[in-house]
Amino acid sequence: MSCIFCKIIKGEIPSLKLFESEKTLAFLDIGPLSKGHSLIIPKFHGAKLHDIPDDQLAEVLSVTKKIALAQGVQNYNILQNNGRIAHQEVDHVHFHLIPKPNETEGLGITWPTKEANKGELAKLVEEIRSKM
Amino acid sequence: MSCIFCKIIKGEIPSLKLFESEKTLAFLDIGPLSKGHSLIIPKFHGAKLHDIPDDQLAEVLSVTKKIALAQGVQNYNILQNNGRIAHQEVDHVHFHLIPKPNETEGLGITWPTKEANKGELAKLVEEIRSKM
Repeated sequence: MSCIFCKIIKGEIPSLKLFESEKTLAFLDIGPLSKGHSLIIPKFHGAKLHDIPDDQLAEVLSVTKKIALAQGVQNYNILQNNGRIAHQEVDHVHFHLIPKPNETEGLGITWPTKEANKGELAKLVEEIRSKM
Repeated sequence: MSCIFCKIIKGEIPSLKLFESEKTLAFLDIGPLSKGHSLIIPKFHGAKLHDIPDDQLAEVLSVTKKIALAQGVQNYNILQNNGRIAHQEVDHVHFHLIPKPNETEGLGITWPTKEANKGELAKLVEEIRSKM
């Protein structure tokens, strides 16, 4: 196992641990974008969100919420990246809780909206629904 | 109630619906960043993640995963924004599922890492844990 997050879960690498339960671990990011930048991970190893069984995901958001409440933050982003091109750096699913105290600190977002065609969107809905 | 997402939940405003259950609704974003850009929302009204009861959040990630699998996407971002400064535009908690097909489409991220002081991080962990 060369996964750095699995090593943190096993205690082979130290972490700044915030919360631990049977299925979930949370710790401070050591390369923070802002004060309080935390990572919440399922202990189940999988690279991408769609690789994780539902029951291993059920608690993730309540733990994330618990940490936001303990920090008392009002402005923050929750981000989970899948794939290198989508900015994922560690191949074990992790949710970033990133406080946004001001314009310069925290997550920077650009939002290149596309012109959407109503007919194409309606077709896409049918296509996706047919596979669910 | 002037919340646009509550109106969508009630069916007062039409949506490109992908999934609906007792607690959760998912639909296509009509101002997409990329093909398949979807929104997954708890039906419970609350502006920010920390306003939503745990049991109303438990299903959100499994629904998100279901939509990612149906779309067959490999590269994508899950994003949930809290507060105007953090890019939130509708004050009802919503999770974006944003496919990242290439460098130019999808979510744009900038990652302004701060220099972290080990001693300060250790102190911060104690501070947060004491409030959990």
